[in-house]
Amino acid sequence: MEDDSKVMIETYAENKLPELFDYLRIPSISAQNKGIEQTVNWIIAKLKELNAIKIEKWNENGGNPVIFAEFKGSSEQTVLFYNHYDVQPPEPLNEWQTDPFEPTVEDGKLYARGVCDDKGELMARLSLISYFNKNGGLPVNVKFLIEGEEEIGSPHVEKYVHDHATQLKADECIWEGGGKDEHDNFQIICGLKGIAAFDLEVTTAKKDLHSSLATFADNAAWRLVEALASLKGKDGRILVKGFYDDVLSLDESTKAAIRKIDFDREKMEENYGLLTSALATGTAESLINGNTITINGLISGYQGDGSKTIIPSKAVAKLDCRLVPNQNPKKICQLIQEQLIKNGFGDVKVKTGHGEYAFRTGLDNSFVRLCKRIGDEVYGKNKCLIIPNMPGSGPAQQFASELKVPIVMVGIHYAGSGPHSPNENIRLADYRQGVFYLYKVLRELALN
Amino acid sequence: MEDDSKVMIETYAENKLPELFDYLRIPSISAQNKGIEQTVNWIIAKLKELNAIKIEKWNENGGNPVIFAEFKGSSEQTVLFYNHYDVQPPEPLNEWQTDPFEPTVEDGKLYARGVCDDKGELMARLSLISYFNKNGGLPVNVKFLIEGEEEIGSPHVEKYVHDHATQLKADECIWEGGGKDEHDNFQIICGLKGIAAFDLEVTTAKKDLHSSLATFADNAAWRLVEALASLKGKDGRILVKGFYDDVLSLDESTKAAIRKIDFDREKMEENYGLLTSALATGTAESLINGNTITINGLISGYQGDGSKTIIPSKAVAKLDCRLVPNQNPKKICQLIQEQLIKNGFGDVKVKTGHGEYAFRTGLDNSFVRLCKRIGDEVYGKNKCLIIPNMPGSGPAQQFASELKVPIVMVGIHYAGSGPHSPNENIRLADYRQGVFYLYKVLRELALN
Repeated sequence: MEDDSKVMIETYAENKLPELFDYLRIPSISAQNKGIEQTVNWIIAKLKELNAIKIEKWNENGGNPVIFAEFKGSSEQTVLFYNHYDVQPPEPLNEWQTDPFEPTVEDGKLYARGVCDDKGELMARLSLISYFNKNGGLPVNVKFLIEGEEEIGSPHVEKYVHDHATQLKADECIWEGGGKDEHDNFQIICGLKGIAAFDLEVTTAKKDLHSSLATFADNAAWRLVEALASLKGKDGRILVKGFYDDVLSLDESTKAAIRKIDFDREKMEENYGLLTSALATGTAESLINGNTITINGLISGYQGDGSKTIIPSKAVAKLDCRLVPNQNPKKICQLIQEQLIKNGFGDVKVKTGHGEYAFRTGLDNSFVRLCKRIGDEVYGKNKCLIIPNMPGSGPAQQFASELKVPIVMVGIHYAGSGPHSPNENIRLADYRQGVFYLYKVLRELALN
Repeated sequence: MEDDSKVMIETYAENKLPELFDYLRIPSISAQNKGIEQTVNWIIAKLKELNAIKIEKWNENGGNPVIFAEFKGSSEQTVLFYNHYDVQPPEPLNEWQTDPFEPTVEDGKLYARGVCDDKGELMARLSLISYFNKNGGLPVNVKFLIEGEEEIGSPHVEKYVHDHATQLKADECIWEGGGKDEHDNFQIICGLKGIAAFDLEVTTAKKDLHSSLATFADNAAWRLVEALASLKGKDGRILVKGFYDDVLSLDESTKAAIRKIDFDREKMEENYGLLTSALATGTAESLINGNTITINGLISGYQGDGSKTIIPSKAVAKLDCRLVPNQNPKKICQLIQEQLIKNGFGDVKVKTGHGEYAFRTGLDNSFVRLCKRIGDEVYGKNKCLIIPNMPGSGPAQQFASELKVPIVMVGIHYAGSGPHSPNENIRLADYRQGVFYLYKVLRELALN
């Protein structure tokens, strides 16, 4: 009977793909404020079709609307799904081999902007609801929170979650993201890193000066370069007093989970097109529990062709630090400013940007164990790993602390999905398998 | 009689100002390839009016045309004037208080792009030719070389000077630039620094990556920052083996000239709008004979508003080093590349740009002494200084080595002229005085 349901469900998901194609054709780009209303209307219509008992559009706190929906199931259990309807800008367009907003299937892969992050995941979940509607009803209550600003740092979701905490109440939360690693191991991801984004800015003169004056006139670009270099050792260690003070030591289950990760440098180089290896010492442990300080951008002085012999009066670096549980993004920015002052760079100012705390569901949580058990069944015992957290960030901590709910990521990505990159894609076999996995998870939860 | 001629000549120069205005109205911007032909035609017409015995337009080696002109005088002496007809782009336009190409007089100052650098100087010289034409003829032979690519590094002038060395033969050369310092001392400037312009480039991956991968994926911006920081001490000393090897020790006359320079930090801060003072240790000696390594621009990763959490795959820094006599620009670039390799930054590549050697006319040269003698008479004995060289650069070394000629700069700038900056201007009193000074120099040369 299980085998029958697998074929039925996977076929059902496959047949529903044209709906995903329609969804992918709407360019819902939050960074460029494109297609937001159209997308929201499309999703709400879809939720109505599926007989949601409640559909709400929240916009009282500003930002792109948050869609809330609720479906009634036959048990007391309630699962909350977190999704987002916005996607990254498709640029650079010349690197796409297909139109990013015209879904294209080739060799079993579906290409489109947002197909893995995060439109494919929403539609996988909705096609499962549709299946249950037609096959005996949902085994659990299901809620959806679908926001439209994830790709710009979810600036409003915390407030919506806080204000609607009662409505969002659930026993478990299934996040977006997750899937298979470069060895095709299925990952049950139990958390996210935090992030502190900030700019460093320095101004040394009222205007750019002729570079012949460089024996006595400060150079903003040099000040910035020296300030930056003073913050990090060549081994990647962050040279900021207090930076690591709040980092917790890893518990045994997390350490054990890390030991099971097969961190394969060669595969990483191939997957990500790495050309140099100064940081080849990176490990599975640092990927899961390491802090980073990343320069996202450098801007100073002359940007054009050829040369212009000036002393730049202003220089800006954009940075982010990835954080681990218990580190406070605001405090991190303060510590960096204090260290710059100590290092003699008080003229280099930290402008604090968006911040998110890290979050981890305990690996011994019963929901994590359930996800692992089903994962072993669906993907194979040796092909299913518990991962303490993604190296990326997201607003999960706000959900967890408001809703007191375990959160996992069990998605449909694979190592070549390339979210945020040109030629973003999923493998249709993973998509079908993901719907079946979720079917089994919801059924199993109903037995709890 | 001297006083009479002073009034006559200054009045004559004043009456000729409308011609300078016409010249300033032509936006001859080499970097933007604007107005070149119009400017060349305008100058040639002017030279014809002045009865030059030879006028040539050289363009056989490419680049913007070089104008050559020759005037016959009553002695055997021949003076070569170096000028350029191109100007810097006027940007940023919003910082101009007047239209940069509509000359405007206010409080005795004439504002326009190129008025000091270098259109005012050419017209001062031509109005003196005109005066001599009407008052007994030129006392010396005069030649002009007027190029159109000075503001983009004079890439073609060396070849033209080499090919036309016989035609350009002269006893003395009066360069562009020069004038009064921030204490209104008149400067007789005897040389220029050299320059080595280059880019540093590094590529760490095939494309920008998500910053969550920063524990193991190299960051081009960080590589660049660390490479740059390894090249310079905080005191400004350049940490490149061999960089200073070819620097000559200063001779006594140069040392004595440097001692006479009143290097006034406070005035400098005010003049140049300096806001920070990490390099407040700069001295007159370093201004004249110090090497610098200047970042002109930094370009990497995300340049827009807000944040984008990427690891940049490519980073570029644009730099220039100012050089002193006997340093070779190409060798300097090679030494920097070698040092980067030694420092562990072999992935950071030096792309050599334009280079010029430094040049100094010996301070005991008879033409320098003549210029000083006349300077003492016209500007006052305590208000006339010999300066070994400007901190800026130019193609003077090519002229000097091809033509075996002493070169000085005795111009019409003042400390607030702001060449290359918005609101470029000269004081009309300096302009008139400069024409009279030159009148006396040419007359005195005829007596040699």
